[in-house]
Amino acid sequence: MTVNTWALTYEGFDPQGERLREALCVLGNGYFATRGAAPEAAADEVHYPGTYVAGCYNRLTSQIGGREVENEDLVNLPNWLPLSFRPADGDWLDLAAMEVLDYRQELDLRRGVLARSLRARDRQGRVTAVTQRRFVHMADPHLAGLETTLLPENWSGRLEVRSALDGRVTNSGVARYRELDGRHLVPLETGVAGDDAVWLLVETNGSRVRIAQAARTRILRDGETVAAGRRTVQEPGLVAQELAVDVREGEPLTVEKVVALHTSRDRAVAEAGDAARQRVARASSFEELLERHALAWDRLWRRCRIEVGSDGDQEVARTVNLHVFHLLQTLSEHTIDMDVGVPARGLHGEAYRGHVFWDELFVLPFLNLRFPELARALLGYRFRRLPEARWAARQAGYRGAMYPWQSGSDGREETQRLHLNPRSGRWLPDHSHLQRHVNIAIAYNICQYYQVTGDVEFLSEQGAEMLLEIARFWAGIATYNRTLDRYEILGVMGPDEYHDGYPDRERPGLDNNAYTNVMVAWVLCRALETLELLPTHRRAELEEWLGLRREEVERWQEISRKLRVPFHDGDIISQFDGYERLQELDWDGLRRRHGDIRRLDRILEAEGDTVNRYKASKQADVLMLFYLLSADELLALLDRLGCPLQPASIPRNVDYYMRRTSHGSTLSGVVHAWVLARSDRLGSWRFFTEALASDVHDVQGGTTAEGIHLGAMAGTVDLAQRCYTGLETRQDVLWLSPSLPEELDGLDFDVRYRGHWGVNLSLTPELLRVRVADHDSATVKLGVKGEVVEIQPGGVREFPL
Amino acid sequence: MTVNTWALTYEGFDPQGERLREALCVLGNGYFATRGAAPEAAADEVHYPGTYVAGCYNRLTSQIGGREVENEDLVNLPNWLPLSFRPADGDWLDLAAMEVLDYRQELDLRRGVLARSLRARDRQGRVTAVTQRRFVHMADPHLAGLETTLLPENWSGRLEVRSALDGRVTNSGVARYRELDGRHLVPLETGVAGDDAVWLLVETNGSRVRIAQAARTRILRDGETVAAGRRTVQEPGLVAQELAVDVREGEPLTVEKVVALHTSRDRAVAEAGDAARQRVARASSFEELLERHALAWDRLWRRCRIEVGSDGDQEVARTVNLHVFHLLQTLSEHTIDMDVGVPARGLHGEAYRGHVFWDELFVLPFLNLRFPELARALLGYRFRRLPEARWAARQAGYRGAMYPWQSGSDGREETQRLHLNPRSGRWLPDHSHLQRHVNIAIAYNICQYYQVTGDVEFLSEQGAEMLLEIARFWAGIATYNRTLDRYEILGVMGPDEYHDGYPDRERPGLDNNAYTNVMVAWVLCRALETLELLPTHRRAELEEWLGLRREEVERWQEISRKLRVPFHDGDIISQFDGYERLQELDWDGLRRRHGDIRRLDRILEAEGDTVNRYKASKQADVLMLFYLLSADELLALLDRLGCPLQPASIPRNVDYYMRRTSHGSTLSGVVHAWVLARSDRLGSWRFFTEALASDVHDVQGGTTAEGIHLGAMAGTVDLAQRCYTGLETRQDVLWLSPSLPEELDGLDFDVRYRGHWGVNLSLTPELLRVRVADHDSATVKLGVKGEVVEIQPGGVREFPL
Repeated sequence: MTVNTWALTYEGFDPQGERLREALCVLGNGYFATRGAAPEAAADEVHYPGTYVAGCYNRLTSQIGGREVENEDLVNLPNWLPLSFRPADGDWLDLAAMEVLDYRQELDLRRGVLARSLRARDRQGRVTAVTQRRFVHMADPHLAGLETTLLPENWSGRLEVRSALDGRVTNSGVARYRELDGRHLVPLETGVAGDDAVWLLVETNGSRVRIAQAARTRILRDGETVAAGRRTVQEPGLVAQELAVDVREGEPLTVEKVVALHTSRDRAVAEAGDAARQRVARASSFEELLERHALAWDRLWRRCRIEVGSDGDQEVARTVNLHVFHLLQTLSEHTIDMDVGVPARGLHGEAYRGHVFWDELFVLPFLNLRFPELARALLGYRFRRLPEARWAARQAGYRGAMYPWQSGSDGREETQRLHLNPRSGRWLPDHSHLQRHVNIAIAYNICQYYQVTGDVEFLSEQGAEMLLEIARFWAGIATYNRTLDRYEILGVMGPDEYHDGYPDRERPGLDNNAYTNVMVAWVLCRALETLELLPTHRRAELEEWLGLRREEVERWQEISRKLRVPFHDGDIISQFDGYERLQELDWDGLRRRHGDIRRLDRILEAEGDTVNRYKASKQADVLMLFYLLSADELLALLDRLGCPLQPASIPRNVDYYMRRTSHGSTLSGVVHAWVLARSDRLGSWRFFTEALASDVHDVQGGTTAEGIHLGAMAGTVDLAQRCYTGLETRQDVLWLSPSLPEELDGLDFDVRYRGHWGVNLSLTPELLRVRVADHDSATVKLGVKGEVVEIQPGGVREFPL
Repeated sequence: MTVNTWALTYEGFDPQGERLREALCVLGNGYFATRGAAPEAAADEVHYPGTYVAGCYNRLTSQIGGREVENEDLVNLPNWLPLSFRPADGDWLDLAAMEVLDYRQELDLRRGVLARSLRARDRQGRVTAVTQRRFVHMADPHLAGLETTLLPENWSGRLEVRSALDGRVTNSGVARYRELDGRHLVPLETGVAGDDAVWLLVETNGSRVRIAQAARTRILRDGETVAAGRRTVQEPGLVAQELAVDVREGEPLTVEKVVALHTSRDRAVAEAGDAARQRVARASSFEELLERHALAWDRLWRRCRIEVGSDGDQEVARTVNLHVFHLLQTLSEHTIDMDVGVPARGLHGEAYRGHVFWDELFVLPFLNLRFPELARALLGYRFRRLPEARWAARQAGYRGAMYPWQSGSDGREETQRLHLNPRSGRWLPDHSHLQRHVNIAIAYNICQYYQVTGDVEFLSEQGAEMLLEIARFWAGIATYNRTLDRYEILGVMGPDEYHDGYPDRERPGLDNNAYTNVMVAWVLCRALETLELLPTHRRAELEEWLGLRREEVERWQEISRKLRVPFHDGDIISQFDGYERLQELDWDGLRRRHGDIRRLDRILEAEGDTVNRYKASKQADVLMLFYLLSADELLALLDRLGCPLQPASIPRNVDYYMRRTSHGSTLSGVVHAWVLARSDRLGSWRFFTEALASDVHDVQGGTTAEGIHLGAMAGTVDLAQRCYTGLETRQDVLWLSPSLPEELDGLDFDVRYRGHWGVNLSLTPELLRVRVADHDSATVKLGVKGEVVEIQPGGVREFPL
């Protein structure tokens, strides 16, 4: 199979597959994103526009079974895409009602352009060929463009074009949320601006963010603007312009729609409406805008490229490109100056409502090495919400900072208290806010960012304060069990969301989740180290500011050595206390009965059972330890905790849990590919390719249409980047220990590391080559096979493998 | 005279001096500032509240003599201070109508607390003692507090307290702007929150920024909350709570008012009103808030302190502290995450409407060495407005970026086109937008920031792009004069705002302003250098992005060697072409007739003459060259321009222009103190102390009450910091060449330099001591008396002087 590694192409008209195509053909630039593949006139776009602006949330109260439920959503923007046409005496383009002769969509990953071409025959036999290109501008994040070329193949006459901005959109893209209120926008004003533009102003009904769009529509023939009759249609929440022009058989006509978007949250703006009108008035032509857009993408790809050589299967390389592309839809240089986090589904869909979970854990490793400014900005998003996390800890009776599992716009807990099991139709209590381990992820990210960049300023100004407050929270939630002479963490949930409690206990939560406890020991160690890393006066200031005394720090020491880590069957780390008493599940039987058992929890609940009774995990939990920590680091940590593990026990643990995991989360494949990379290369490859496929082939059967899985996308890229190269940043050394899967014949990419602007890593099965950009001022310390060498700026070193 | 160097104290009730006191007793934290000294119940506070939020602007259209005039103002916030009291049967506190027995105000600079105490006797003979403390919180920028203790000295009975939030404010603090519309706020809602709070929501009428305040008022006796009857008063734009409680002679009662402020521009906030209500509900007691506030100030002072030893005159040390204090009202760590520039009058008053001029030029040198993150953020403010500056250049027919003289909220030109001469009562055309030299200031600041910090990332991401675009603008505005074989810059204004054209020419602007031309040569040289400094791939990207070709860069080289620099009287650099043909002014005669002739332009215009006819400058213009560039650098630059100057000519130039300058700007004193520092130490000291006095003694007779002069304040501090130590950052070396004025016996402060967290400089007339913090990882290269030495972390070096 030969695949164009820079394009995602769909041939043929497929109304059934449209939502998946839409989700995969998202266009964005960090500031806003738009799901762009739907044939406008055919789809129910009013209800399914999928256009989001980063960080623009709104909260609504709904009634579910007589109970008030609050929910906060990433807001659907007014739809800027509506553009249709008709012969003056005919019907508006409607693919469902017309004969579609050709249909082709292509997403150009390298330039960030979505192209569509189609030919359709109407009831009168008129055939029109349509080609469209669109982009969301990567250099000017407030602009987007849609170019439509219409060719009347066998007719002449009057053509009407309708170009609209539609603010009557709702959040209703996820079926199971439709009982919740999804109407976020209040129409404020519409109007005409200048000769060729219309504008729309709406406001979110809770957060009161004003959103303004202005659209300029021009008709061109042979590159020259054509005068067209214009009629403006204004309804509450909608403005459209209808243009009429004569066309001749065989003579193409181009309609350019350029749209500007501003919100009241924007910087360097006086008022959103004025700014949008001004911007669209100043915008150059579609072609010129596209040229700058492509140039911006060039620059991004230079930073973010990862060349995956796979002789036989180009699909891998293409999907890696697709994943980087999608990452850059949500997070880009434009995000640096914004107050945005990493929503689980990016800006791509409505699932999880745009909430910020722990996905950064999978996203930051890639960004740290490519876009450290962006990684830092994402940590800044957490820093701004430190006061809210402190408040949450205080309310729960703890000290320090307790970040929420699902973080809303202002950092409050937005985890649902009820969720719907679509299988049973029941709304069930949801305890997933007990996933306090999100605080481990944030601490881990701070440490990773520092290790890669050496950014002491960040540590001093923001990082250390967050880390110390998180350490303090964990030390506070840990309770001392005198009988065991151990500290325990009770009543929490691990990453495996199937288990939210014990089958025989009413109070939700689990005791001594091994992942949590071991990583808390790790966090406490890092907090202690960080105090040493800080400039002396800054350490003193922070200790004073936080009221951090010697006794408290000594207690961290103590806890970090005495957290309980449960074991069973000898050397198997128990996922939590009492795990060994749970029943084994009849995996084969269930698979026979249900086929796809990824969402085992829903299946069992619908059968009146509960997954809490079984040794069955949704996703990696204990195995997260092997993912986040190197074997050396983990064994040393367990040693410190007084529960030494032999290296040989690692594969036993991996094997034990792998056989008991349903992979109900796309992240699970990433973790398993990683932990198997060195012991079971074939197994690892299988997980890797399955994780790669999760969105592009929608392996969960419908979840991609609700929004791509940003963490899994970034995680797979990071597998290629860090796992297969064995890249680690420890003690000021860049360690490499390549282990290229047999299916790949090469990897090539550049990383930024500790102020170096370009360290090129080039890997084949036989050779690792490292090249340091000649402009850098310092040498790079590189560790390969246990030896540290220094490479001068401009130097190259080769390591036979 | 012994002066408390950490307090500004006023004794006695002085309704006349109130506005000056208010201006000097500003409280702020970067996010918002409040002019707090007025006795609330006595002053016309509704019209004169002086509370501003950083970066919150609004634009209005007014009619002046039948002409439409647009103006954009920094918005006056709803006033949070109103708090008054009365005996149930008496009058509200009104110092104007009562007998004031004692009155004292004290601004505690170290802790950022303003205290006031007074005793007043009402018409019934009741004497009440009042003590107040207030702060605008430096750790939580959204909070402010006002504590009032009331002691009925000779009466008992029912006491009523009124605590309000007042959104009916206008911008009307500057008399000569009162013809312009100053009503910015539209009342939206008011309400009661919880048991003890009220809230107010308003919106600016143009920029549509929502501003929410919530006020919690509690009455305490002996530290315990006292139950009080509460009555809420709600009017459009105003909400107040009236509390009634019984008091007894000799028993004090405390009223605590804690106020939260949020705007729709805030980050990490869902909705401004909710955020304000939540914040005030969560706020701790006045006392606890004050403690954290003082701790935050401690930290700031550790970074920003400059100890000035002046044996005899403590006033110098106090005023330097006052200036640092005021700087930190407008710019602090809270500003780093905001989109704000350096408004000429800070957040302290309404003069210049909050517009951003070139004052950064005087502010950044201090911040670069103390708070580089903040300096970088201020440059980021300009970077966000680069598209607007590009647009302005394009509109004017140039390439590159042309930043405006008075920058409004979105970076557009906001310079007035008409101004009022209060002496003649005439509104006159204003050409000061021709001060294109603001583009020199921005370029200079970028280079200075880089020199101090070595921040290549900033240069790569933002700095170089701004600098290159500014260079391109200058290269474009320069025209080639074949006759002279020189490049010329025609039709601009220099820093001396008196001259806006030639008396005999209708078109405004001057030709070949020497300051502009020489500094443009400097900017072009730095742009060329910066291309070399960039990482190779980033340079290539930028060249591609900007379409910067070799020929254009070569043209910069050429222009940088061939800009015209006019001279007259032999070696006197002419302020501009034709300067020598202007008439000498009868300075003594004018001084005799008018006394203060700082605003010569107004005096002459009122007499039907124009200052354009005379050799008379408002402020340093040519002399700015000697201020910004070291003698070596300037002489080398003039050499390169083919117009060599002898070192001996420098004092002749200084003397020439000094005698022809009226110092109509407070910045002039700073510049003159600097340029005289090594040749005329007494003269320099006189300018320094006069510049120090400008605000604290309101030497311009009324301008301080309209807002303090931030540039001059920072400039005087920088005189102590850089001029008297001879501190320069060149070629990766920290150069010091102390020249302590005789009137000072020491200087001691810490700078941050190139990633070092603390380099302590301690200077006495005999000794310079440099100490490097022991935590730093790298050595500091220090240059003293032409020799470069390296100091290890933890090392100290002493240099006898």
